[in-house]
Amino acid sequence: MPIITAERLMDVGVRMLKAMGASDYEASTCMDFLVKANLRGHDSHGVIRLVPYIKRIQRGGTNLRSEIRIVREGPSTALVDGNWGLGQVVAKRGMEIAIEKAQKTGAGTVSIFNCCHVGRLADYAEMASDRNMIGFVVVVAPTFVAPYGGASRVLGTNPICFSTPRAKGRPIILDMATSVVASGKVNVKYARGEKVPDGWIIDSDGNPTNDPAKFFEEPMGALLPLGGIAAHKGYGLCLIVELLGGALSGAGCGKEFMKRGEGNGVFLSATDISSFGPVDEFKNRVEGLIDQLKASKKAVGFAEILVPGEPEDREFEKRSREGVFIEDKTWNEILSVARELKVAL
Amino acid sequence: MPIITAERLMDVGVRMLKAMGASDYEASTCMDFLVKANLRGHDSHGVIRLVPYIKRIQRGGTNLRSEIRIVREGPSTALVDGNWGLGQVVAKRGMEIAIEKAQKTGAGTVSIFNCCHVGRLADYAEMASDRNMIGFVVVVAPTFVAPYGGASRVLGTNPICFSTPRAKGRPIILDMATSVVASGKVNVKYARGEKVPDGWIIDSDGNPTNDPAKFFEEPMGALLPLGGIAAHKGYGLCLIVELLGGALSGAGCGKEFMKRGEGNGVFLSATDISSFGPVDEFKNRVEGLIDQLKASKKAVGFAEILVPGEPEDREFEKRSREGVFIEDKTWNEILSVARELKVAL
Repeated sequence: MPIITAERLMDVGVRMLKAMGASDYEASTCMDFLVKANLRGHDSHGVIRLVPYIKRIQRGGTNLRSEIRIVREGPSTALVDGNWGLGQVVAKRGMEIAIEKAQKTGAGTVSIFNCCHVGRLADYAEMASDRNMIGFVVVVAPTFVAPYGGASRVLGTNPICFSTPRAKGRPIILDMATSVVASGKVNVKYARGEKVPDGWIIDSDGNPTNDPAKFFEEPMGALLPLGGIAAHKGYGLCLIVELLGGALSGAGCGKEFMKRGEGNGVFLSATDISSFGPVDEFKNRVEGLIDQLKASKKAVGFAEILVPGEPEDREFEKRSREGVFIEDKTWNEILSVARELKVAL
Repeated sequence: MPIITAERLMDVGVRMLKAMGASDYEASTCMDFLVKANLRGHDSHGVIRLVPYIKRIQRGGTNLRSEIRIVREGPSTALVDGNWGLGQVVAKRGMEIAIEKAQKTGAGTVSIFNCCHVGRLADYAEMASDRNMIGFVVVVAPTFVAPYGGASRVLGTNPICFSTPRAKGRPIILDMATSVVASGKVNVKYARGEKVPDGWIIDSDGNPTNDPAKFFEEPMGALLPLGGIAAHKGYGLCLIVELLGGALSGAGCGKEFMKRGEGNGVFLSATDISSFGPVDEFKNRVEGLIDQLKASKKAVGFAEILVPGEPEDREFEKRSREGVFIEDKTWNEILSVARELKVAL
């Protein structure tokens, strides 16, 4: 597996997107989010997405140099038509609008339809926490998940993301699928011919299975919602995200969402901390809780307690220093498409 | 176990609270929320709380006929000092403020400190969905839950609640602890001398146990966060609620929260659906998703798919008709305190 520096990934990707017709801003915004996903250890949302993005542009599914349109607007709200621009560009603009509104009223909420795949949610939520706001982002995603008690794929893996600033160090960032795992993890096991752990997937009759082929091959099974013995809770969260992301924006829910061209239905909110009290006091309370968590007695087999975002921060340090491992297949595909686009390598 | 009608529970409870000095409004608001919890099947949040509430009033921990105070306010936000009024009265007023703000700006968020136990969250979220808004409520609660990888009680059971209206029937209402189960369920098992299922609790060293005594007796164990094999996700949600409920309001997090007199630190938000598009379209999309969920192939052992709030609605129908089962111990305690208060029974 080649190890590629972040700079090289950025450079190649930016030039490929520009060769497709993307503006400097579009190309660098999109690649910045993809490469950050690799640096933070989430390769499923990294440059592996670049070739599919380019193929979608080629078949007319993504509009480059397009503008978003604010369809409906209030002091604290906006409904945005993403006009099928690059998801990263559209969702970043969405969070900027939410933040602008929160600066004026204390809270801003933006809902987006006609939006291509936005990648990891963490970066959008972090835009809010960087401005001393609480960021909250959810998106409806393609249907892979069975409802509690069901055996069909009705719901998306529908991630939830929160970010808050803290007194020391980088923000708390929770970014999680409401399914037990993201579908990409089943993909990896399938590609490697490995079994999946108990509790990830069911076959098309709803029976537990460890065979990823039962998920990918007809008749297809489904991912389970988060929760194990309390999977009705994960199902509930997954359903709520489907409504926040799909019903409020008009991107659609379930089958309706799939009919409308995939991508993501997006819900972004920013809540201004200073509207409630001194930001420093908030940050100190966060830090105080982190201290309590770190000081917790450890369970057998655990050396330390981490807070959400910390594993990704550590991976970022490591990969920024050492480069990013990219599978041969992914890197070769990128190079092959780059050559087609006559991008000098 | 005596079966008591909702009317009788209301009547006795209202007269007891009024005998303590509560106003008509305070007594009926508090009892309305407690009795609704019983009717919807959540006895742990029902009239079992009445005697503890009265004892807290008696020792000066709850201020009757007190007023909330808005400490800081923006167009879409308010920080509220609940002045240790009855939690139901304070939180209901909080959601009213959030709704008023959402009617003007599209979004309203209210954070409350100095607030006694608010009971079930569902009723506050439903106030928003009744007005064609999306209700979102979380509260920080007393520390019973270990962090992922930990063996100490650092976090609360910290429930999350969402409500949205739908085209037909009652709203979708998700109301769930971010621990595997609410602590009250462990309590019931302990009182009955029964074991708890796998995955609920750990002992004080962080080992899994089925013995509820390991949770209640020194050295005390802890509840596990939601998630099973993905408990890091439930832990993340639990931590975020601790921050939304405790750090933003100033009610405090973990130990700090416990020092400040218990109760709940409250975060309430209302998002106005009509600010994003026609309410009927939203409701039809919700209904469309429910149809898809209901039509899902069933997993082995399941006869139907339910949506969040539906089990409670069915219990409500049944108990409204048949009355509420109250354990002898709870009912006798209520009657005994009623006699002390010279309430005619």
